[in-house]
Amino acid sequence: MSDFSPHTYVAILAGGGGTRLWPQSRRRRPKQFLPLLPGGETLLGATVRRTLALCPIERTLVVTAASQVEEVRQTVPDLPEGNILVEPIGRNTAPCIGLAALFLSRRDPQAVLAVLPSDHHIGDEPAFIRVLAAALSAAREGHVVTVGIRPTRPETGYGYIQVAGPDPAGEAGLYLVKAFVEKPDRDQAAAYLSAGTYLWNSGMFFFSAARILRELRTHLPALSDLLDELREHPERTAARYPQAPAISIDYAVMEKLGTGRAKNDLDAAAAIRVIEGDFGWNDVGSFAALADLHPGDPDHNHVLLDPVGPGDGGLAPKPVLLRSSGNIVWASTGQLVSTIGISDLVITVTEDAVLIMPREKAQEVRDVVDVLSHGGGERYL
Amino acid sequence: MSDFSPHTYVAILAGGGGTRLWPQSRRRRPKQFLPLLPGGETLLGATVRRTLALCPIERTLVVTAASQVEEVRQTVPDLPEGNILVEPIGRNTAPCIGLAALFLSRRDPQAVLAVLPSDHHIGDEPAFIRVLAAALSAAREGHVVTVGIRPTRPETGYGYIQVAGPDPAGEAGLYLVKAFVEKPDRDQAAAYLSAGTYLWNSGMFFFSAARILRELRTHLPALSDLLDELREHPERTAARYPQAPAISIDYAVMEKLGTGRAKNDLDAAAAIRVIEGDFGWNDVGSFAALADLHPGDPDHNHVLLDPVGPGDGGLAPKPVLLRSSGNIVWASTGQLVSTIGISDLVITVTEDAVLIMPREKAQEVRDVVDVLSHGGGERYL
Repeated sequence: MSDFSPHTYVAILAGGGGTRLWPQSRRRRPKQFLPLLPGGETLLGATVRRTLALCPIERTLVVTAASQVEEVRQTVPDLPEGNILVEPIGRNTAPCIGLAALFLSRRDPQAVLAVLPSDHHIGDEPAFIRVLAAALSAAREGHVVTVGIRPTRPETGYGYIQVAGPDPAGEAGLYLVKAFVEKPDRDQAAAYLSAGTYLWNSGMFFFSAARILRELRTHLPALSDLLDELREHPERTAARYPQAPAISIDYAVMEKLGTGRAKNDLDAAAAIRVIEGDFGWNDVGSFAALADLHPGDPDHNHVLLDPVGPGDGGLAPKPVLLRSSGNIVWASTGQLVSTIGISDLVITVTEDAVLIMPREKAQEVRDVVDVLSHGGGERYL
Repeated sequence: MSDFSPHTYVAILAGGGGTRLWPQSRRRRPKQFLPLLPGGETLLGATVRRTLALCPIERTLVVTAASQVEEVRQTVPDLPEGNILVEPIGRNTAPCIGLAALFLSRRDPQAVLAVLPSDHHIGDEPAFIRVLAAALSAAREGHVVTVGIRPTRPETGYGYIQVAGPDPAGEAGLYLVKAFVEKPDRDQAAAYLSAGTYLWNSGMFFFSAARILRELRTHLPALSDLLDELREHPERTAARYPQAPAISIDYAVMEKLGTGRAKNDLDAAAAIRVIEGDFGWNDVGSFAALADLHPGDPDHNHVLLDPVGPGDGGLAPKPVLLRSSGNIVWASTGQLVSTIGISDLVITVTEDAVLIMPREKAQEVRDVVDVLSHGGGERYL
């Protein structure tokens, strides 16, 4: 299914950093730029490729940090230069999305956009495209729409979307959102899972540029004022953008559009809609997630070999894993990785760092990053 | 105590290779050349330094392979160039020792030599020197002498020396040897340990050059003939040495000098003597042995950092070991090694290889080397 409505745009947010895949991900080269998918595809590259079923590359926008523009160019060489929108400084998603909406509304006052994270993996791409087409369709009718992922475990690392009930306008698959819920503790997460009315917040949003700019005017006037100024004086972006309020779009706008908010003065027409997405979503939130993206060998070892140069078919050498099982090995150098009698570890080797930990401790990587941040190890970050 | 008898020489055998410390040890740079001791000293360097208490550097001989001459020069820069004796090809210890004896007997017909492995660690150096002085003293009286180490565990990786009884000539601490015993199985090793009359074969031998050449004439005439030829025509060494019988001195000579040998036609005067050595001997036979050479941190992690260049005080970066204990980490590159929740592993990182295994499996390194030898990984050996 494709959706080549001439007013459809995709805005991919590629400015984020993160520490959960350190030492593979770095400040200057975060997760979305790493060749971590089978065949060496990057998450950003795959995101752009997938959405070509919805709109052509000419209407694909990548929003990124100044320090990552070159990575974007190399990762998406077909992207028109004018479609890279640079955040002068990271100010969270609300200013970033506001900037994208402003940019597109100038180019096409009828622009409808899908705002997508750049660093998620989608296992079932046809299902993904069907969901996005439906979400864009609702956005064209004026709705703010998000996609929620059916939880499969009591995950404490995600925000949740509490579903209120079917869209009263009767559009199939569209539901009203009662509330956006912060990351829960373990017990809450278990309750959400068993309740069946909570979905994971995927961070994907769909709306017309005009609608989101109106919502920002209502809910985040400080940003709206700034965007109005930049509409008149785009040359001031570098100087003024750093003064935008650093706040997420979820917190600034989306949670204001839930039907369950305290004031309850929201009419159903204005409420945010959610579509349930069931398309093998994976946020690649830790090294452990890589096991789902790369088939294991007969001993359940999952191996990622990055390009390293002309030898070995251009990839890092194939590891020698003797009497070893259940490991995730990610090698990004010419060094041969060997193990004897090792089970269920993450082992990753980069030019300047080696990290070894049990798969079950993969969420603790940030503790190493903290030590480096405070202990003179900045050059490794 | 020192022994500067003008006829005393030390011949250090530094030609051996080995796979038990792969990937740190390589064919071109085996264990004795690695800076694995505290402060970055090498086993060969420490061996030379220790024996300076017995004879000056001018009478210290290092026997090595042609491919390792440069490593010897760099490791022992004070060694006179003429004191590096090159084996054209490795033919085990009998030809190597024969060559050294021939070389020294030409230089000094009264030469008495200590033949020492280059790749052992000695914890108690004063005790070591006392034992060697006693062994050299007996060698000057015409004996063939060896040093046996009191077993501390039922080790199956060493040969044993069965002690017959005190030297009838009454020299204190000297014993007659009944037999040299091959590496035992587990049950035999346990029996040797409890019997109390078995010592580990240290591979250290002491004799006059004249005596060992006579023994070779008796027990290995093929080598003796070759040595006679080389005495007349030293320029033929490169061409003829490869034809020497590849056999160990233990097997060719020493075990013929035990009083318990079947034929029993050996008189006590000719029998080999053994001195018990108790000086913290460690053959550094696996990565696990390094824990004894390097003090652990409060979490019992033992860390070796090799010189890698100007940064970090010239050493590999100090590892970040979070909630990790009992590990042996040996880093030889600028890469930062980090672990989270890892216990009792050996982790070693070199320019072209990374090896990870439990300490208890440190003896299995050769299995990786086998895979590489037969699987196209020659360049890593």
